[in-house]
Amino acid sequence: MMRLIIEPIVRAALLEDLGRAGDITSDAIVPAGARVEAVIAARQPGVIAGLEAALLTFELAEPTLRIERLRADGARVARGDVVARIAGTARGVLAAERTALNLLSRMSGVATATRVLVDAISGSRARIVCTRKTTPGLRTLEKEAVRLGGGSNHRFGLDDAMLIKDNHLALAGGVRPALERARAHAGHLVKIELEVDTLDQLAEALEVGVDAVLLDNMEPQTLRRAVAMVDGRAVTEASGRISPDTIAAVAATGVDLISSGWITHSAPILDLGLDIAC
Amino acid sequence: MMRLIIEPIVRAALLEDLGRAGDITSDAIVPAGARVEAVIAARQPGVIAGLEAALLTFELAEPTLRIERLRADGARVARGDVVARIAGTARGVLAAERTALNLLSRMSGVATATRVLVDAISGSRARIVCTRKTTPGLRTLEKEAVRLGGGSNHRFGLDDAMLIKDNHLALAGGVRPALERARAHAGHLVKIELEVDTLDQLAEALEVGVDAVLLDNMEPQTLRRAVAMVDGRAVTEASGRISPDTIAAVAATGVDLISSGWITHSAPILDLGLDIAC
Amino acid sequence: MMRLIIEPIVRAALLEDLGRAGDITSDAIVPAGARVEAVIAARQPGVIAGLEAALLTFELAEPTLRIERLRADGARVARGDVVARIAGTARGVLAAERTALNLLSRMSGVATATRVLVDAISGSRARIVCTRKTTPGLRTLEKEAVRLGGGSNHRFGLDDAMLIKDNHLALAGGVRPALERARAHAGHLVKIELEVDTLDQLAEALEVGVDAVLLDNMEPQTLRRAVAMVDGRAVTEASGRISPDTIAAVAATGVDLISSGWITHSAPILDLGLDIAC
Amino acid sequence: MMRLIIEPIVRAALLEDLGRAGDITSDAIVPAGARVEAVIAARQPGVIAGLEAALLTFELAEPTLRIERLRADGARVARGDVVARIAGTARGVLAAERTALNLLSRMSGVATATRVLVDAISGSRARIVCTRKTTPGLRTLEKEAVRLGGGSNHRFGLDDAMLIKDNHLALAGGVRPALERARAHAGHLVKIELEVDTLDQLAEALEVGVDAVLLDNMEPQTLRRAVAMVDGRAVTEASGRISPDTIAAVAATGVDLISSGWITHSAPILDLGLDIAC
Amino acid sequence: MMRLIIEPIVRAALLEDLGRAGDITSDAIVPAGARVEAVIAARQPGVIAGLEAALLTFELAEPTLRIERLRADGARVARGDVVARIAGTARGVLAAERTALNLLSRMSGVATATRVLVDAISGSRARIVCTRKTTPGLRTLEKEAVRLGGGSNHRFGLDDAMLIKDNHLALAGGVRPALERARAHAGHLVKIELEVDTLDQLAEALEVGVDAVLLDNMEPQTLRRAVAMVDGRAVTEASGRISPDTIAAVAATGVDLISSGWITHSAPILDLGLDIAC
Amino acid sequence: MMRLIIEPIVRAALLEDLGRAGDITSDAIVPAGARVEAVIAARQPGVIAGLEAALLTFELAEPTLRIERLRADGARVARGDVVARIAGTARGVLAAERTALNLLSRMSGVATATRVLVDAISGSRARIVCTRKTTPGLRTLEKEAVRLGGGSNHRFGLDDAMLIKDNHLALAGGVRPALERARAHAGHLVKIELEVDTLDQLAEALEVGVDAVLLDNMEPQTLRRAVAMVDGRAVTEASGRISPDTIAAVAATGVDLISSGWITHSAPILDLGLDIAC
Repeated sequence: MMRLIIEPIVRAALLEDLGRAGDITSDAIVPAGARVEAVIAARQPGVIAGLEAALLTFELAEPTLRIERLRADGARVARGDVVARIAGTARGVLAAERTALNLLSRMSGVATATRVLVDAISGSRARIVCTRKTTPGLRTLEKEAVRLGGGSNHRFGLDDAMLIKDNHLALAGGVRPALERARAHAGHLVKIELEVDTLDQLAEALEVGVDAVLLDNMEPQTLRRAVAMVDGRAVTEASGRISPDTIAAVAATGVDLISSGWITHSAPILDLGLDIAC
Repeated sequence: MMRLIIEPIVRAALLEDLGRAGDITSDAIVPAGARVEAVIAARQPGVIAGLEAALLTFELAEPTLRIERLRADGARVARGDVVARIAGTARGVLAAERTALNLLSRMSGVATATRVLVDAISGSRARIVCTRKTTPGLRTLEKEAVRLGGGSNHRFGLDDAMLIKDNHLALAGGVRPALERARAHAGHLVKIELEVDTLDQLAEALEVGVDAVLLDNMEPQTLRRAVAMVDGRAVTEASGRISPDTIAAVAATGVDLISSGWITHSAPILDLGLDIAC
Repeated sequence: MMRLIIEPIVRAALLEDLGRAGDITSDAIVPAGARVEAVIAARQPGVIAGLEAALLTFELAEPTLRIERLRADGARVARGDVVARIAGTARGVLAAERTALNLLSRMSGVATATRVLVDAISGSRARIVCTRKTTPGLRTLEKEAVRLGGGSNHRFGLDDAMLIKDNHLALAGGVRPALERARAHAGHLVKIELEVDTLDQLAEALEVGVDAVLLDNMEPQTLRRAVAMVDGRAVTEASGRISPDTIAAVAATGVDLISSGWITHSAPILDLGLDIAC
Repeated sequence: MMRLIIEPIVRAALLEDLGRAGDITSDAIVPAGARVEAVIAARQPGVIAGLEAALLTFELAEPTLRIERLRADGARVARGDVVARIAGTARGVLAAERTALNLLSRMSGVATATRVLVDAISGSRARIVCTRKTTPGLRTLEKEAVRLGGGSNHRFGLDDAMLIKDNHLALAGGVRPALERARAHAGHLVKIELEVDTLDQLAEALEVGVDAVLLDNMEPQTLRRAVAMVDGRAVTEASGRISPDTIAAVAATGVDLISSGWITHSAPILDLGLDIAC
Repeated sequence: MMRLIIEPIVRAALLEDLGRAGDITSDAIVPAGARVEAVIAARQPGVIAGLEAALLTFELAEPTLRIERLRADGARVARGDVVARIAGTARGVLAAERTALNLLSRMSGVATATRVLVDAISGSRARIVCTRKTTPGLRTLEKEAVRLGGGSNHRFGLDDAMLIKDNHLALAGGVRPALERARAHAGHLVKIELEVDTLDQLAEALEVGVDAVLLDNMEPQTLRRAVAMVDGRAVTEASGRISPDTIAAVAATGVDLISSGWITHSAPILDLGLDIAC
Repeated sequence: MMRLIIEPIVRAALLEDLGRAGDITSDAIVPAGARVEAVIAARQPGVIAGLEAALLTFELAEPTLRIERLRADGARVARGDVVARIAGTARGVLAAERTALNLLSRMSGVATATRVLVDAISGSRARIVCTRKTTPGLRTLEKEAVRLGGGSNHRFGLDDAMLIKDNHLALAGGVRPALERARAHAGHLVKIELEVDTLDQLAEALEVGVDAVLLDNMEPQTLRRAVAMVDGRAVTEASGRISPDTIAAVAATGVDLISSGWITHSAPILDLGLDIAC
């Protein structure tokens, strides 16, 4: 991810923690010249994401810190694995520590949760995709974490693809008028996906033509019939009631994509810590 | 929370979703004049937080929407409870829907998780407090959600109180010099808390004097001895390895506070949805 | 366009003109209570765009102004047609005048230029599309102006669709590897367009599969052959050396789209003025 | 121009193009380590402006790029002339390419248009000046482009000089009261210019005293009489109906300045391109 | 002053005081529904400035407050005079109180200090002007306060007029080359002032021509000779060692302007307070 | 102070002075390649503060300047002492000069004023503390200047400590309910201070318990009785009618703190200048 894009996020996160007066504890206790060496290590196994943002936190807090990346974003780590080393003024390291870990552990949590789902359907043709149920302000980083965990991205916002939902259908008066209006307004590089609740809606959508269909809250046998009906004419996405336990059955229906809000809205963090040698 | 403080967060969240072109699906399909009535309802029981921010999302998206708050932030809700009603242009409602729900369900998740811990220690004197392990950019809202869930706030950042940790002790050369430097630099309205790993450290801290002690990763019997040693001379905070299962035993030791990073860094969202009547 | 999206642009434009001290001429000469009625009128025929932004300029400069929109964005106007009426304090009207007209005349210029090209190919199946050669900072408004002029939008930026150009092909080692890498990385709602200079490249692209092809700088007879080769399997876009004189010949080749940078990077403004009755 | 002033403009322009996800085409296709050499070359003759901003675009996109400026802002170039060389990662060059060219070609268009008018009146005493009819958000860069093209700047905004127009006269009750109020309020470093439509107004203005007069929409013979009346007591500026064809006749009247909105609001870009050697 | 210009200053000032959590004292103690009436009253005589900004502070903190302005900016007040009334929620009033008073008392301090100097030279032809020695971030408000106190403004920044100082002369090689370069580069609405230390420099400047001369640190008799030499050909400004005691002697020399840095960099505040009736 | 915190303040201050066009005088007169050496020297004795911000001003204006700090923030200087040396392009130095001096002289003024009060009570146990009567936008820098002058900081804003004032007492119905509500809502790291006007209020406050008491506008003999009543159970702060003449008598009463608004709201600047050797 380009630094230009993530720097405003990191800078704001750091300033949120520093407040008006900065790290008053370290300023009082730690001599200005004191130096430390620190490592960021995993406290549990998982997939790393957000490392670039975390290391930028240290750099913004104190440009003279020496920062060494030992693992790449996307790497699988075991408990105890060291992902980066930071050396320099103790004040600089301590001022950035919490913000850096907040970014890193949260994004690694998203990547790890994604990887759990990806692994649960390995062998199938399906891919895991995210949703727009992301943390306000962190969508770009979370979408990247999903990719690093082996998933694929759904649209990034309301403006880069059309997703026609039940309310749109009600307001438009049905599948056909909704799809026709969508096609008439969409630029040639804008894809259109339609959420369908029934196989009748699906049939109508296929008649009109659509890039992708979101098969919402369907049982595996219904999904299987839907996939057969579509027969390659659109991308198929299963959605709703997805859990690590049930996902394999969904994948077995032959859908192309399985979307999960959980990987971004409710994934627990991956525990990572900073160990300092003074 | 004052609108002046939360508006920048809500505005940024909305713009993150709208991108450059706004809600292209609704602009294509939904007539400009179409009007809807919508309700926000809980899909599972919990505690509401972030409702003010969520409703501000609708207002910023479309100032002409009529917005009615039916439950207050902090309210306990059951599955199906309606917390707010929004009426007006369909385009306005649809443009704000996802961002509003992202804010509301995330903050309600924090409040609900806090409440689970608070309930687990009801009857004890202990209170639940949060940490600085919050979502970058959302600390103010999450700290409020903790209060709404019945918890209490730890410091808001590096600048509003001193928290002396193991690394500070190592860099200062021990408990006494660290506390003395802290006291010498702290303004008269700045409290000082010290993290201790052993009862020896605790004894030294009490000798010098300190406002609060963070008893890190101690077994219940050790906590009990620590509380006895402190004997009201400082606020006692237990930290580390806190889970809904173990927390009652910690509370029974007599500590004043039990801190939890989990309520902000890993709480699952509370499921809330928007139901539209077109 | 949602006000939330355009307000920052309008606010910045107004502050750029007001500088540190505001409208010192009117503050010196015009009594604070003086009131005027003003109309915005076309000085030449064309298509209106940017009217929403222009009227927001007046509102931001002075919230008490009464503003009446007489023509909609997208309307064709003749010389002398009045598009809006503004009444209220003279100072408010004069402070906003230049900024409002700068926005309105520039966007109307883009819409009018687009309409010229659209009209030149009426009867054909081709549509006019814009490029990323827009004014820095005004892309959202200019893309909308293109639509208002009857054109269609190309991608909005580097992030919402893939456009593979000659340099990408060179760096990837050819059409096939480039398309395969693109497909492997693209989310399911991301379209892929490929720029081709030769019919051999086109053949290879069609073999691999692609959503759209940009036929760059081809003579009409080559375009015709390309369209035949594509035979509906991809959207076809003609690009390069497009002028009002030559565009009909290009449209006659049967391409789906004709792209023009000129409509955004070099369109002259549409002359509109503010007439004040004091 | 100081970097501090232009960096916010360039940064915003680049982020407008990068959107939320950055250059997804290059990220998918171009290896992270691939390096290129590129040159920016003129595709038609003209005057260079905005080069500093264009090169800053590359630097902000990728700080490790090596950037070599071969021509200065203000230089006249022939078709094929290379103005800068950039070498480094292909991804960095490609991410900045379009934004850099948009800034450079637009500003060079303004400078070139200015130069056309300046050349058309060479030999006369008149100078070309710009207006406030600039692109919203780009005034500072466009004013500089005017100077680079050989023109001179009018005021930068509403706050740095007074320009009394017809509406001010109507609201003040005539030339004398308007000028007297202006002089009473103006700081000693603020100049006052008055727009006059008739020679009677001019006579009254000269009686009261004024720094400059804008002679609006006057025929050459009227301009000549106006210049004679002024007789060096004020700067004279001719305005309205200026075109490359008519400007020499206006210059021949002896006016000091000829103002043109066209050079900033409707100048076509100067065609410049980026050629990459992979 | 237009609200658009001062709102960002007021908003930032309020947020600086509110921090992350807002007014925690009032939120804890004052019921949400409690209402108060408050008046802003002068605790000492002086001239009011910044009232618009102060009242905007209340409005931004709580839009439902009723705000009544009883005195205008620029009014002279006696001890005890009430300048505004605010009524509404106690929380709203208390949250804005300190920020509003900080703005009001500081600007009124500038206006009052200016008025002291203006009164000290009443009867002379001289006017008091400010300098660029203003508070970082508050220049626009302080320049206005100077006007409200009866003074006049010097340039607003480095970009709206030329002021040639001793270092410029040294770098240019003397008065003549400096003035000639300045004139060659200055737009026709840019005035040029020259700082002179000696009458020889003054003579050279008058020969070349200049709009204003800053007579730096000259004794009254030297100022008198300088004024005689200038003889109306330029505006004369005396500067340096100005105090309320010595200023009358300076004014008596016949200079047009006397500049004072003290009125903006060292003026004590005017004491104003908020009295609340609960 | 961390650069991340002060850079936005310095950048905004510099842009406020540079305006749209930058330093037009130096750009016209001073050759781009001209180099100077400059020193910042004290024109009067005092305490230095804001030097870090001042030197950052030069760095932001022109990154190639060589900057040497000769005295530290907090240093006492005599008339003529040189505090820093800057060498490099004349244009860079001149563009930053005024903004740098505005920051430095203002903060040094605050530090020097604080030091005057601190020295006036040397030998007593009392410390000088500041208030929230700071310059809007500069609170962080002014709070630091107070510390550099030997003073101590009061709370930074409305959110980092509770200060219960007379209006809170009136709205809460007395000292006891106010303190009880405050304690119930305050986090364990938030201190509570109560403003008391009478010894009866003080007695009630001590009964309930409070961290600090602000003894407002009390005569020395009353302060002495208050200190005796408190007897170490709370921090005592004297406030109101503090001047260099009366402060020793206040300090002699045995209070812990004496607060002064004057040191931030009305301290004159410390005169420092830039001497350039061209």
